[in-house]
Amino acid sequence: MQAIKKHSWKKRLEAKEKRMEKMKDITSNRIIPTNKIVQALETLIQPGDRVVLEGNNQKQASFLSAALAKADPEQLYDLHMIMSSISQPEHLDLFEYGIAKKVDFSYAGPQSHRIAQMLEDGKLTMGEIHTYVELYGRLFIDLIPSVALVAADKADAAGNLYTGPNTEETPTLVEAAAFRDGIVIAQVNELVDELPRVDIPGSWIDYVVVADKPYQLEPLFTRDPRHITDIQVLQAMMIIRGIYEKHQVKSLNHGIGYNTAAVELLLPTYGEKLGLKGKICKHWALNPHPTLIPAIESGWVESVHCFGGEVGMEKYVASRRDVFFTGRDGSLRSNRTLCQLAGQYAVDLFVGSSLQIDTYGNSSTVTRGRLAGFGGAPNMGHDPGGRRHSSEAWLDMKTNNNPLSRGKKLVVQVVETFQNGNKPVFVESLDALDVKNDAGLATAPVMIYGEDVTHIVTEEGIAYLYKANSMEERRQAIAAIAGVTPIGLEHDVRKTDKLRREGLIALPEDLGIRRTDAKRSLLAAKNIEELVEWSDGLYEPPAKFRSW
Amino acid sequence: MQAIKKHSWKKRLEAKEKRMEKMKDITSNRIIPTNKIVQALETLIQPGDRVVLEGNNQKQASFLSAALAKADPEQLYDLHMIMSSISQPEHLDLFEYGIAKKVDFSYAGPQSHRIAQMLEDGKLTMGEIHTYVELYGRLFIDLIPSVALVAADKADAAGNLYTGPNTEETPTLVEAAAFRDGIVIAQVNELVDELPRVDIPGSWIDYVVVADKPYQLEPLFTRDPRHITDIQVLQAMMIIRGIYEKHQVKSLNHGIGYNTAAVELLLPTYGEKLGLKGKICKHWALNPHPTLIPAIESGWVESVHCFGGEVGMEKYVASRRDVFFTGRDGSLRSNRTLCQLAGQYAVDLFVGSSLQIDTYGNSSTVTRGRLAGFGGAPNMGHDPGGRRHSSEAWLDMKTNNNPLSRGKKLVVQVVETFQNGNKPVFVESLDALDVKNDAGLATAPVMIYGEDVTHIVTEEGIAYLYKANSMEERRQAIAAIAGVTPIGLEHDVRKTDKLRREGLIALPEDLGIRRTDAKRSLLAAKNIEELVEWSDGLYEPPAKFRSW
Repeated sequence: MQAIKKHSWKKRLEAKEKRMEKMKDITSNRIIPTNKIVQALETLIQPGDRVVLEGNNQKQASFLSAALAKADPEQLYDLHMIMSSISQPEHLDLFEYGIAKKVDFSYAGPQSHRIAQMLEDGKLTMGEIHTYVELYGRLFIDLIPSVALVAADKADAAGNLYTGPNTEETPTLVEAAAFRDGIVIAQVNELVDELPRVDIPGSWIDYVVVADKPYQLEPLFTRDPRHITDIQVLQAMMIIRGIYEKHQVKSLNHGIGYNTAAVELLLPTYGEKLGLKGKICKHWALNPHPTLIPAIESGWVESVHCFGGEVGMEKYVASRRDVFFTGRDGSLRSNRTLCQLAGQYAVDLFVGSSLQIDTYGNSSTVTRGRLAGFGGAPNMGHDPGGRRHSSEAWLDMKTNNNPLSRGKKLVVQVVETFQNGNKPVFVESLDALDVKNDAGLATAPVMIYGEDVTHIVTEEGIAYLYKANSMEERRQAIAAIAGVTPIGLEHDVRKTDKLRREGLIALPEDLGIRRTDAKRSLLAAKNIEELVEWSDGLYEPPAKFRSW
Repeated sequence: MQAIKKHSWKKRLEAKEKRMEKMKDITSNRIIPTNKIVQALETLIQPGDRVVLEGNNQKQASFLSAALAKADPEQLYDLHMIMSSISQPEHLDLFEYGIAKKVDFSYAGPQSHRIAQMLEDGKLTMGEIHTYVELYGRLFIDLIPSVALVAADKADAAGNLYTGPNTEETPTLVEAAAFRDGIVIAQVNELVDELPRVDIPGSWIDYVVVADKPYQLEPLFTRDPRHITDIQVLQAMMIIRGIYEKHQVKSLNHGIGYNTAAVELLLPTYGEKLGLKGKICKHWALNPHPTLIPAIESGWVESVHCFGGEVGMEKYVASRRDVFFTGRDGSLRSNRTLCQLAGQYAVDLFVGSSLQIDTYGNSSTVTRGRLAGFGGAPNMGHDPGGRRHSSEAWLDMKTNNNPLSRGKKLVVQVVETFQNGNKPVFVESLDALDVKNDAGLATAPVMIYGEDVTHIVTEEGIAYLYKANSMEERRQAIAAIAGVTPIGLEHDVRKTDKLRREGLIALPEDLGIRRTDAKRSLLAAKNIEELVEWSDGLYEPPAKFRSW
């Protein structure tokens, strides 16, 4: 035997205890005084540490990230940051100042230009770009954090946390650090004697600090129906008729977008007229979209499980607890990890949008000079090869009688053939390929791969890509609905009828939809005020969405 | 607007409160007296309810399942059971007695014969067969439970639960019910004043009952090295040399099996000799396998995240907290959901075994007359299409320079060409196809699909299937290592050299391995006693594994 004996097997614990010992100058219990947070971080974090900082596309541990950026770079340097989302300016300041060096992340929407520039300038070292759940997975394998900085609504003196409607990714980040002798620091909006409910047990939390102001929270999933166009109404009608009804889609996820908001708002009108209530769109994995209110009020929706909350929807959700997941206190319980798991494995369909789609259906929202990352879409927007149970819609994707063949998840892309600014969505080659080369990435940042896409919907019609028997057929079906983009113009219009007959594409008339019927007047709510009305005044939109 | 007004939006809560109101005759607090459990279940559960009953391949809520089987079928009938694993006789008694009617499950190993028979006799209605995580996902979508029956080690009077090393799936099952106004009942081994740590907050738990004996727990992952054969040593050497070293596999999952146990036991001997320590097999997603002890003691293993615990490994794990995830109390924190997530998305490689492999690499452990289900293997044993980050091993699976090409997860099948009883493993067609027809399943119960398998290892050699450019090449590579099975005998041996030259297969000599060197003497531990010795007496094997 060659065992390494006499070796300590609790170095992580010893390091943690040593750091906590030094905290005695700052606090005698687990509460860090607000004005001592910078000093506390300098004490609890060491150069080279792996630090997971909460902040996805909604909730941000904004007080802690701002405090970390104020640390002394002479004391605190070379941190390896792990962040779901790089969305605050100070997230990148950390690298400018030399406090942090390396980053592993999922999404960098608002900071995607700057991160690309800093990478080029050698100011940060890139780890990998992930989906949310991949990054969470690595927290338990090879990116185990030394420190977790997270955000919650309230804490009690024992460190128990109440996250209210915005539980999101907090429990997962905390679990990775707390159960590996990492240090967990939670910023809270307030300290209370008794919590409405416990979302995370106090025995998982080392320190709590009351933030100078409530954590930042973005109303990311609010779409004002005022901006929905007639074209989007047309697309929504096609989706309902040509996809949801055709395949009997019962459970689904909608991305953020006006086109999917239009679908939500057509269910109680157009969907009702088609007699589809109770037959489609019963179970949802999505944030509490305000545009889903009319469908909920009309009895379409049996359940909604949420990744996170949505600003202004708190009271409405709490008053509709037969539909949403809520705690004993009545407020929403979201869970980003579990909702992504459900969105991947347990729903019939994902529908999202894109900025570019190539001739074979590969798509990306990445454009030159931007490293936007992935967020959650690729996790839900692919056919999960590990799935073994079936559903009606899933089985409907089978196109042959091979005894080993199986169904497929429905992955729908809905786009208009041109973006704003007259840029074609359908392109010969994705900008993502250039970004791969420019940023030296190992693979091209493709959001949804063509092989996973079952349907593409444009204002021209639907391409039923799951029916294509070859790459050439796939290409033809896409070109047939690509309008007057260069790809669309390549299309031999004499082939259109053949594709229609074979069911590879459907035009609105094939679905019994008259273009002239596609009007905004079909929307169950035409503006935010009408959503509030539908909600019986329970929906309280943020100021920026109020126009009355 | 056509809103359904005046309608209650808290029917689930009202139903729960009504049931709990009736519990006043049984208890005045949240503790159910042990001898009143049957009456309590009859009070808290209603006919037709969806009941999730904890019990995976290790931990079982055995007291609660036995109590449920004693309920009066006149009062309690037509339940829809949701169970990770159907493993206890009483799980199926529920259906014999008419208490339950429908079942959705993941795994039915020990009861797979009886369930197939009962299905044929019309004694139960089959929902779907899932992997663990698919079933968990559906708990938040379209299989939301009315009642959750779970097991924990200890509870306090406030209902906080301590699950100790066997946290497993408990938090996920509880979350689905607790946050949807379902009723959560936990059996515990004991009630204490203060818990060593809180694994699940009391505000998620409605009732606690002290079980008449500790919950059932299977030492499922213990393999006695005594039973490892020289052939398995040979295969393990090939895996280390021809897969782990070749592709620089740093993070991985091992299934249950003597062949993977052999790999674990060769790391400190053969692996050490090859100079691979610190280069391969650093991060693991797996249960605390006793056969991993020598590798841990020799400094090979940086981290292990666990699906569940393993009987006898409690003290060892607690003493090796730099390697395992542990709580403040020092004992293991396992989490089946998070470990499956990590095992799917965050590791380089999965290796498992199978009973049958067809000519294209599709495999199944299902044989005629048995409905064994899937457990967790398909979730980890597929190439996750949603993965966007790369690793060295993952990128090594790229076989072309297409700008959109990406890496692949390594999915390895290791089998001997014949099973016990001289049945060939390599077959023209899987028994799973017959089972599909016999049981009227929507798809054939394939465990791992050929398209996902990157390597097959037999005693003859390794087939590098990821390199095959066509189905024909794949077939040839498999046949070349299929020995004297009918599939192997079809192989034109004149092609073997060509396949070797092209790297599609490797024989032991191609890897620098002499068959005569493959001896049990290479194992770091040759029996359970030596594992105990390696562990410094910390590993305490269950009686059935003790022979001294």
